[in-house]
Amino acid sequence: MSLSEEALELHRLNKGKLEVNTKVEVKTAKDLSLAYSPGVAEPCKEIHKHEDAVYDYTIKGNSVAVISNGTAVLGLGNIGAKASLPVIEGKAVLFKSFAGVDAFPICLDTTNVNQFVETVKLLEATFGGINLEDIAAPACFEIEERLKNELNIPVFHDDQHGTAIVTVAGLVNALKLVKKSMGSIKVVVNGAGSAGIAIVKLLNRFGVNNIILCDSKGIIYEGREFGMNDVKHEMACLTNFKKEKGTIVDAMKKADVFIGVSAANVVTKQMVRSMNQNAIIFAMANPIPEIMYEDAIEAGARVVGTGRSDLPNQINNVLAFPGIFRGALDVRATDINEKMKEAAVFSIASLVSDEELSEDYVIPAPFDKRVAPAVAKAVSKAAVDSGVSMERYKTALI
Amino acid sequence: MSLSEEALELHRLNKGKLEVNTKVEVKTAKDLSLAYSPGVAEPCKEIHKHEDAVYDYTIKGNSVAVISNGTAVLGLGNIGAKASLPVIEGKAVLFKSFAGVDAFPICLDTTNVNQFVETVKLLEATFGGINLEDIAAPACFEIEERLKNELNIPVFHDDQHGTAIVTVAGLVNALKLVKKSMGSIKVVVNGAGSAGIAIVKLLNRFGVNNIILCDSKGIIYEGREFGMNDVKHEMACLTNFKKEKGTIVDAMKKADVFIGVSAANVVTKQMVRSMNQNAIIFAMANPIPEIMYEDAIEAGARVVGTGRSDLPNQINNVLAFPGIFRGALDVRATDINEKMKEAAVFSIASLVSDEELSEDYVIPAPFDKRVAPAVAKAVSKAAVDSGVSMERYKTALI
Repeated sequence: MSLSEEALELHRLNKGKLEVNTKVEVKTAKDLSLAYSPGVAEPCKEIHKHEDAVYDYTIKGNSVAVISNGTAVLGLGNIGAKASLPVIEGKAVLFKSFAGVDAFPICLDTTNVNQFVETVKLLEATFGGINLEDIAAPACFEIEERLKNELNIPVFHDDQHGTAIVTVAGLVNALKLVKKSMGSIKVVVNGAGSAGIAIVKLLNRFGVNNIILCDSKGIIYEGREFGMNDVKHEMACLTNFKKEKGTIVDAMKKADVFIGVSAANVVTKQMVRSMNQNAIIFAMANPIPEIMYEDAIEAGARVVGTGRSDLPNQINNVLAFPGIFRGALDVRATDINEKMKEAAVFSIASLVSDEELSEDYVIPAPFDKRVAPAVAKAVSKAAVDSGVSMERYKTALI
Repeated sequence: MSLSEEALELHRLNKGKLEVNTKVEVKTAKDLSLAYSPGVAEPCKEIHKHEDAVYDYTIKGNSVAVISNGTAVLGLGNIGAKASLPVIEGKAVLFKSFAGVDAFPICLDTTNVNQFVETVKLLEATFGGINLEDIAAPACFEIEERLKNELNIPVFHDDQHGTAIVTVAGLVNALKLVKKSMGSIKVVVNGAGSAGIAIVKLLNRFGVNNIILCDSKGIIYEGREFGMNDVKHEMACLTNFKKEKGTIVDAMKKADVFIGVSAANVVTKQMVRSMNQNAIIFAMANPIPEIMYEDAIEAGARVVGTGRSDLPNQINNVLAFPGIFRGALDVRATDINEKMKEAAVFSIASLVSDEELSEDYVIPAPFDKRVAPAVAKAVSKAAVDSGVSMERYKTALI
């Protein structure tokens, strides 16, 4: 049976991948009187008195809504809310499997930004966090920004920040190996969707200032008059200070790092050969990367990562989001801020020791059990230190 | 420890009563490639091709959203979305425990009818059914009506129809015992909220035409000029054809049946004594009924039911909603219509055999394991017979 057939069968036989279970038994009248009427009135009254008590008596504190509208589903594009449900369910599966978070998929049938935002706002009472997923750019930026401002629970668009965190974690280690610094390298990011934009922003925070961002139309520069949008204009100011123009081929010349969040096979061996010595390539298009591992190595790249599990250095979001939410929920953070993202980067990178670090091991493997707890701990601490955790959780960490 | 303390402790120790679990293991790269990328693209593509396939490959077909805005929580009134979460979670627990339905609580922080409706519409992609809960009248009527019209999945306001179905099931059997018929009895319904209104409507469908509906201001009649709303006007036309006026005391005289969905202790022994012989009393105010069992019996009532588990004839919604949704989901009904509600009434009533039927046993006990499967079967059949099930499920039942 092919992987496709096997995947279909897995989904069909199980009728999806999640179930909602009860943590309390209801087998007797006494059980019923405690879990439901009349006993349930007590926690209701407590929460009505002190809103905060909702974290003590309900599922809210460990619940994350994984929310999509199916407009940018991995490699499939805009397939709509219903067709995105298997992926969004899958994400919820990963939340539970990797970090014990009770995540529930919510696929909203709308492409209207305002409607999306207003709906998620109304869901806040039930959930302890919001993971946005597979929402097309540029709508995803406005949606995330508004929700971060308007909600009191953490909001995180994983396609942006999860990808950026794991990529930069890999880069931190790869640079150690090739003995280059963030401040000295030239980085080409190919793909100006949600992931590409977030990667540029995070690289900036990590001190990389020589970045060229490309989209399918080539290098993005200040004043480019085609294929632009608000966020690309913003990126044009943050990147490409020499206002270079041209194609990805031009951009790659003398680059130290290539980061691809774009499409299959858009990078040639020739382009890799035009890069600086000790080139680092993270070619993350899925399932077929921008350039295959062997080709990149043959063309002289020193470190090559992809999104694939059958190749070295798998850059996989599952290294970040489960631990990030675990950490945020554990101290009841009201946000997932830049300090928390940085903490996640360093905690992932630091799991590869200097002795272990090698060309084919710059990032922990997805199933490395140390990752989620380490990320959670670092993120919790960063939340407390940056003042976005609830007062009563602060002492617990000391 | 008191029941209140025990209930608080149960909720606090478990941090709520639900969890989201995975039905598939994700322990290896292979697992990940089937449940998530790249394998998950296959069910996504199937659903994108045939929308209907969402029922084959996802949780939708067994998922029910239990949705409230916390405006009319059992005995507590308008306590808001967050404070209602323990009850709504509890309802989800009952769905799973009694009928294997994966129910998830959604507490929407709005009292705006239009906003509520639009939000639930956007949630349709994920869920196979909507159970509305603890929403104040009259908003609940408009919300339910609009959602029933605008969604293609079953929508059911349990406070209305669940209560009505169980009440009428008890009445079917009680009337058998006292040898009276639906067409000949006078029924007083006290309480003109969601439950009272639905009970009047269902009694009507069962052939009861002599009904007096009272609210806290007394008998409702055509032309009453105080404390009215649209639905009470509608009820004034359906009931009280002699246009009687006065209080509940006046209404009870020569009544055969009293149905209370109102408040504690509003019925006196004297009022029961003014009823016809072989009076039937369903006093369902919770936790303290309109009149206590012993007092009603002492005053001459023949059959007395309440909402309490420590008294005979417990009229409990848990007899209806789990099996109703199980039945609707099993044949993928697009509605829960009147025929399905009637089928539920008769299936519940028929579980008490003629030999078993007695004053203290007119309705099955809440934990009678036969109930949910019997209701599900009858409701499935009614859905098929009335043409609201999906074509491909019809043959499965024969």
